[in-house]
Amino acid sequence: MHIIQIASRFLILPLMLAAIAAGSAAAAEVEMQFYGNQHFLFKSPGGKVILINPWITGNKDVPFGIEHYKKGEVDLILVTAGHGDDVGQAVDIAANTGAAVFAPAELGGWMAGQIAELGGSKSQVYGGAISGRYHLGDITVQMLQALHGTGISAAGGRYGGFAAGFLITFENGLKVLMAGSTGLTLDLQLFGMRYQPHVVMVPIAGRYMMHPDDAAFATKLLMTDNPNLKTAIPQHFRIAGKPDWMGTPDEYEAEVRKLGLDVNVLKPEIGKTYTLTK
Amino acid sequence: MHIIQIASRFLILPLMLAAIAAGSAAAAEVEMQFYGNQHFLFKSPGGKVILINPWITGNKDVPFGIEHYKKGEVDLILVTAGHGDDVGQAVDIAANTGAAVFAPAELGGWMAGQIAELGGSKSQVYGGAISGRYHLGDITVQMLQALHGTGISAAGGRYGGFAAGFLITFENGLKVLMAGSTGLTLDLQLFGMRYQPHVVMVPIAGRYMMHPDDAAFATKLLMTDNPNLKTAIPQHFRIAGKPDWMGTPDEYEAEVRKLGLDVNVLKPEIGKTYTLTK
Amino acid sequence: MHIIQIASRFLILPLMLAAIAAGSAAAAEVEMQFYGNQHFLFKSPGGKVILINPWITGNKDVPFGIEHYKKGEVDLILVTAGHGDDVGQAVDIAANTGAAVFAPAELGGWMAGQIAELGGSKSQVYGGAISGRYHLGDITVQMLQALHGTGISAAGGRYGGFAAGFLITFENGLKVLMAGSTGLTLDLQLFGMRYQPHVVMVPIAGRYMMHPDDAAFATKLLMTDNPNLKTAIPQHFRIAGKPDWMGTPDEYEAEVRKLGLDVNVLKPEIGKTYTLTK
Repeated sequence: MHIIQIASRFLILPLMLAAIAAGSAAAAEVEMQFYGNQHFLFKSPGGKVILINPWITGNKDVPFGIEHYKKGEVDLILVTAGHGDDVGQAVDIAANTGAAVFAPAELGGWMAGQIAELGGSKSQVYGGAISGRYHLGDITVQMLQALHGTGISAAGGRYGGFAAGFLITFENGLKVLMAGSTGLTLDLQLFGMRYQPHVVMVPIAGRYMMHPDDAAFATKLLMTDNPNLKTAIPQHFRIAGKPDWMGTPDEYEAEVRKLGLDVNVLKPEIGKTYTLTK
Repeated sequence: MHIIQIASRFLILPLMLAAIAAGSAAAAEVEMQFYGNQHFLFKSPGGKVILINPWITGNKDVPFGIEHYKKGEVDLILVTAGHGDDVGQAVDIAANTGAAVFAPAELGGWMAGQIAELGGSKSQVYGGAISGRYHLGDITVQMLQALHGTGISAAGGRYGGFAAGFLITFENGLKVLMAGSTGLTLDLQLFGMRYQPHVVMVPIAGRYMMHPDDAAFATKLLMTDNPNLKTAIPQHFRIAGKPDWMGTPDEYEAEVRKLGLDVNVLKPEIGKTYTLTK
Repeated sequence: MHIIQIASRFLILPLMLAAIAAGSAAAAEVEMQFYGNQHFLFKSPGGKVILINPWITGNKDVPFGIEHYKKGEVDLILVTAGHGDDVGQAVDIAANTGAAVFAPAELGGWMAGQIAELGGSKSQVYGGAISGRYHLGDITVQMLQALHGTGISAAGGRYGGFAAGFLITFENGLKVLMAGSTGLTLDLQLFGMRYQPHVVMVPIAGRYMMHPDDAAFATKLLMTDNPNLKTAIPQHFRIAGKPDWMGTPDEYEAEVRKLGLDVNVLKPEIGKTYTLTK
């Protein structure tokens, strides 16, 4: 079993009975929720809560406000780039919750100052750069290159460093590769060969990154010498407030099928809890 | 027949009779003109006019001024990076002609403001990022990574995003890959395999990008699993005002021959009109 | 013989007799000294002195001050990125010694202004970009991409261009590839295939670049179709003032051995003079 609640050639209804409700205690697996664009929440087997690009203000797919994330309830925030829908409300949420932030050094330096202004601490930010790692308990997060501009929108376009993706290795060994907002590059093949992720999260928005057809090709690259990869999750799409130019999970899935890739496509719905397994 | 008016092992004089004069109506093929550095003009089979990096002021290879491009006579301007010889007079030309601009998002954001100041509209700029696409009628332009700095010279070195190349797919299916100002990277191999361009435009200036020998190697990479590639065009060189360090088309052609590549080298002369075909 | 004074499976004590003292006249080979982080000094067979990232102020591994490098005693300074420990005291040393500087164009533009303020000349800086070359007598230095942010710390985080590594081809044909501060990328394979360096210098710091295990994998990539590569030198590490998160040469060597790479690992000690040969 690789994924719960997904449309798939292989998974069928009975498996869905195994779905674990959000917030359940002592999950043995990785849980994931999606809130539009690249706003993802992970709950690790050890109970750690990790947010990626928590964009809330202006994100019509988010059914809650910033106050949803409360003090002590978020452990780590990963930020891939400096644009408004990437950084989102990471600064506010870090200040409110006390969460650590792992971000490209230049962007992180700016965020640290902002967090301190809101009453948090500069030391919450752990700046890094491509290939660098951050440890959260027994979880390891490694920063990976994403071919994308990263001017900091909230700071007048100031340079935010080299844009990032993240490889998250959870306590149970599950490796999830969040590719960030990236163009197509052969380095995705390297990621497959070298890191062998079980789950990959591939951008499909188009315009500012890969369109669904290139995203499917990226998925193929990520399968290179990678027997682990069973689940591909499209990311950077919206349900409410979707711009005309933006790709959709269905388009991505169709392109994956065209390439004949033997991978399950998980098309996340807003707010549902999915269990990710090897 | 792949190219008109080029020195080639394969093409001979009779083929040159097919040359189509600039400005002729209803061309069935793609026409190209070159004005030094990376200033190229394309006229599509459907009559659309596309400029790349239209550098005029200070460019001694340009026999005209900004007023040469008149209102309504340019449809799209592609800009690869923020340097003075990349952006060139794109802002002025966009304001004067009403042309759309497709550029890296951070650079495009700055250009939009400048265009508006000159009486044009911010909405003329379609910002994008690596792998993103812009549609002009039945033409598709895709942005590709170029390994190059992209500080905006005219804005004090401000960050302009990830530098770009462009894959232009014309109405008749001809695919022209303009590699921009890039260093040598394996991603050029990916471009060959994935997009299979018929024509590639490879930088040869050296110093700030590939020298002719690496440019020839890049051409080889672009031929990987690409049966379409028949024509290679050196770009980013100058005839008048050539700096000492700058590579030449002859050097590039010699390096291509050294590698034994089965490709025609089109060495564009200033202001001539070339027809590009599959 | 490839390297003097290194722990190795192959080299033994007698070879160490060949060690050449620092400052000896008329060396026929390339000599190298290391002063912590990425502060390296090369003396070429023709007597040229090249510094890389000469970080002094705050670098506890440096047993001297800026005045150590005297007028006329440094020929070229290579700078890989804009961070404080990358640029280091390159500006001061350039102003004091009259050395040329080869750096990414945006960073170099800023450095030129600083050097002029200290009484040097803007013309000392030769800006370049990825794949561009600088000639110092019969030595050729080529800039290569490094996947790394490059905000200029001393200029408020201003954009410094695309970060760099350098391929130095000395008068005797020895090719040394300094990878800079980079993340893991398939382009390292390209560097091996295309440039076939004899000596590679691979970052091992982690956090902001590759950790020792990825650095070992990078070394493997650099050996691709590269019969020349005999010596690998870990770089970006510190002896005094080492942060907790920073990798060590021993860790790197262990990872290289795990991969079974047939390469000598030179773990440079502070201030010692090493001779690098083919």
